[in-house]
Amino acid sequence: MRDQFLEQLQAVFDDLAAICRQVESAVAQATLALMTGDVLTAERVISADVDIDRARERVEDAAFDILSLQQPVAGDLRTVVAALRMVSELERMGDLSVHVAKIARLRVPEIAVPEDARPTIERMAAVAEDMVRRVAQIITDRDVEAAIVLGRDDEEMDQLRRTSFAELLSDDWGHGVEAAVDIALLGRYYERIADHAVSVANRVVFVVTGESPHAVSSH
Amino acid sequence: MRDQFLEQLQAVFDDLAAICRQVESAVAQATLALMTGDVLTAERVISADVDIDRARERVEDAAFDILSLQQPVAGDLRTVVAALRMVSELERMGDLSVHVAKIARLRVPEIAVPEDARPTIERMAAVAEDMVRRVAQIITDRDVEAAIVLGRDDEEMDQLRRTSFAELLSDDWGHGVEAAVDIALLGRYYERIADHAVSVANRVVFVVTGESPHAVSSH
Repeated sequence: MRDQFLEQLQAVFDDLAAICRQVESAVAQATLALMTGDVLTAERVISADVDIDRARERVEDAAFDILSLQQPVAGDLRTVVAALRMVSELERMGDLSVHVAKIARLRVPEIAVPEDARPTIERMAAVAEDMVRRVAQIITDRDVEAAIVLGRDDEEMDQLRRTSFAELLSDDWGHGVEAAVDIALLGRYYERIADHAVSVANRVVFVVTGESPHAVSSH
Repeated sequence: MRDQFLEQLQAVFDDLAAICRQVESAVAQATLALMTGDVLTAERVISADVDIDRARERVEDAAFDILSLQQPVAGDLRTVVAALRMVSELERMGDLSVHVAKIARLRVPEIAVPEDARPTIERMAAVAEDMVRRVAQIITDRDVEAAIVLGRDDEEMDQLRRTSFAELLSDDWGHGVEAAVDIALLGRYYERIADHAVSVANRVVFVVTGESPHAVSSH
């Protein structure tokens, strides 16, 4: 019974890591579409989101099967519920990538991000993508230390968001309201992807240690 | 055992409805702060969010107790997990109200929303607040019909969002980049509050009928 539980749980975590890699690809491709104005790449991100949604349903069904058939308690129960929450967050990260792709598509044949706003947005996108890549590995390895480090890296995203606002609200901003609104929303989407990445990493810490990252890192 | 399960479940749903009413107040007060530039009201919304977070923890603990001690299966299991998801979404709606309050606070002593952009933003806020109010009642009454109707009302919010973008991107927009960015983000926050309200209502449909709202309304 216990072996079967652990085996089923392992399959769920393998699926979570696989979904996380799909999200990583969605973030990367959405950013590519954004920076190049490539409508086909944007369309691919938008239409591929259904695969993430379906994978989410499979994980949910598997988690409910484990809860029903294995009737886990205590830490095992919390682990299965954590997996349900992780898959919701991963799906949401996929949705946010779609939002980025839709802004890219909306501005074709133009490019939504003006030249002098690119460095900050590119850095935001790189930070978000890197965080998603690391979370996939953290899920696979159940790596508590890497998860705690990830939580701290969120600060760079907050700083980038402030830089981006300063750029588009400065007197030198010469790209008008539409580009500013696009960039404010893009910043919000990348920031939320990073927030969810941190949250998924925190759930890995909880699954492995039974404690929140704050409690673990203060030991 | 069954009676005890139903009693504990009822307590959880009572708590969910109570949290939903706290969120309704947060949305209303954040909007008041936004429209009047009243910094004290904004501060109150921001500091009251911790109460919603604590209430969420209490519901989570109660739900885990039910899962551990009652070991529900099938529909009962799905109901408890639905409650866990509902409380996450309600907490998130509280966070989004805080975002609205923070934009209000950031612009004091000015008012973030220019006069001619007020009607659309006020309508968005009213739609969001109304949806949250109705969800609280839907949770209390387990009202499937009202929940299905709520899902359809989401369309007004989508339409308002388009109107708001059209306003701030029009040639007549004379309020500059900062106000436009504020309004784009405010629109996003109210839209997300409405999205979550629909999602919570959908979970009530699922809890009562065992089916998704789409399946129920096509019967």
